[in-house]
Amino acid sequence: MTMIHRGFKLALIQMAVGISKPENIAKACKFIQEASSAGAKVVTLPECFNSPYGTKYFRDYAEPVPGGPSSAALAKAARDNAVYIVGGSIPEKDGEKLYNTCAVFNPKGEMVIKHRKVHLFDIDVPGKIRFQESEVLSPGDHLSMFQTPYCTIGVGICYDIRFAEMAQVYASKGCSLLLYPGAFNMTTGPAHWEAIQRARAIDNQMFVATASPARDETADYVAWGHSTVVDPWGEVISTTDEKEGIVYAEIDLARMEEIRQMIPVRKQKRFDLYQPVAMTLNKQRKDDLYKIND
Amino acid sequence: MTMIHRGFKLALIQMAVGISKPENIAKACKFIQEASSAGAKVVTLPECFNSPYGTKYFRDYAEPVPGGPSSAALAKAARDNAVYIVGGSIPEKDGEKLYNTCAVFNPKGEMVIKHRKVHLFDIDVPGKIRFQESEVLSPGDHLSMFQTPYCTIGVGICYDIRFAEMAQVYASKGCSLLLYPGAFNMTTGPAHWEAIQRARAIDNQMFVATASPARDETADYVAWGHSTVVDPWGEVISTTDEKEGIVYAEIDLARMEEIRQMIPVRKQKRFDLYQPVAMTLNKQRKDDLYKIND
Repeated sequence: MTMIHRGFKLALIQMAVGISKPENIAKACKFIQEASSAGAKVVTLPECFNSPYGTKYFRDYAEPVPGGPSSAALAKAARDNAVYIVGGSIPEKDGEKLYNTCAVFNPKGEMVIKHRKVHLFDIDVPGKIRFQESEVLSPGDHLSMFQTPYCTIGVGICYDIRFAEMAQVYASKGCSLLLYPGAFNMTTGPAHWEAIQRARAIDNQMFVATASPARDETADYVAWGHSTVVDPWGEVISTTDEKEGIVYAEIDLARMEEIRQMIPVRKQKRFDLYQPVAMTLNKQRKDDLYKIND
Repeated sequence: MTMIHRGFKLALIQMAVGISKPENIAKACKFIQEASSAGAKVVTLPECFNSPYGTKYFRDYAEPVPGGPSSAALAKAARDNAVYIVGGSIPEKDGEKLYNTCAVFNPKGEMVIKHRKVHLFDIDVPGKIRFQESEVLSPGDHLSMFQTPYCTIGVGICYDIRFAEMAQVYASKGCSLLLYPGAFNMTTGPAHWEAIQRARAIDNQMFVATASPARDETADYVAWGHSTVVDPWGEVISTTDEKEGIVYAEIDLARMEEIRQMIPVRKQKRFDLYQPVAMTLNKQRKDDLYKIND
């Protein structure tokens, strides 16, 4: 008999990331255990959870995915706690190339997808923030979603959230929840962090969640924090400030269906006038979507 | 010599709409004159400015566009005041069919485009709001933008704003400003009105403005009001409450270019992974885009 799950508890780990990679990994695993004990079935770490965020750190902290200590620890934590882990991101080393990579593990401890940030964070707001990930990182070459017994989940990393098309593709492929580990900053955070999440949620009538590192005022790059869950009505159903902690939310899929019926925009699109957003065909690789049958 | 204009004053007329069509039209013209005197170059009326909003009113208040008294009055007002008028909307009669239609007039008093609402407002939020425009209205069959000496402007009516694809097409066609005459209600207004405008503005790095009727608590359909202008950074630069009045904003196109350079998402899209939103080819009619050379 197939159990139909109409909801589940999501946890976002807003952890303070330090300079010790082993300590960062250990802390992540401790938080995963705490979230699991509280009933979370899907646990999301923040962007760059094993390394300070900054182009000068990425090469030193990078490791293969899977095959490095971070992936091994997350695989074990997923298995030990029987939860899905969306592994925030870490600097990944593949040959000479570096990526900003999110690995997702199922409750058996198997890696089910690996998302490499596809939109690199290259911005220049004079006097406020300049950051050029592309100086050291390479971009990913595919979108990434995975199936759980609850729903299909799409993954993006931080700057990926600015690209509406990516979320529109995920929506068209049946995702009910988008997870964006991310680290907005003190300029873009207050201006755009919540607004963009609400945009993705309202436009696609999906749950959208972000997991940020806690804020460290002494870091080179000061993260905004404010890990947040938005429901398909566009309402912030759970959030926090800049400090370390766990954000929990019930992902109520029946509520999503209700909203989709009340305001049926998904059926009212005028595809006779404009074309739906679609994946570019030659990139529809077989590893874009992993289906898990637990 | 071509004058290059880097900005202009926009006015949104948040007028109270009554049951007398001639009085509604006269009031609109009075407000247009006031806005023009204040220096506005583009003046936007609210959705359904000559008629109460409701399916039972549309047939009685409907008229041809152009050819009816509302269009004649707006053409004259545009010419007399030398302004662009985005004529909110009125119920349009064309043969046996009715449309929710926005006519746009240039400063010579010529109608340059006619936008018929393409996404009809059919929603059902139990216990809150049920409305089915499609019971009496027919949908439009094209998107609508027009060129001014300042910038290219895209037009949608109310529910059209919920469809991100429409704004994405306008952005790809070079619009810098989207104008949505609209009348959200007391359920969707507080939940979504501002959030969706900010979504369109941030995602497309454009100016977005909405013009609502003033709120009439005694009406069948109670409008939210809150006519608003959002800049390409997603900031609300001008707004109001529910009462009658004019909202003004400077549309600073240099600021738009600055934002597009700071966060260059328009150039960073991964069209190797997903396809750009495009107009459906067989609907690219020659009347989709009017170019005016004033």
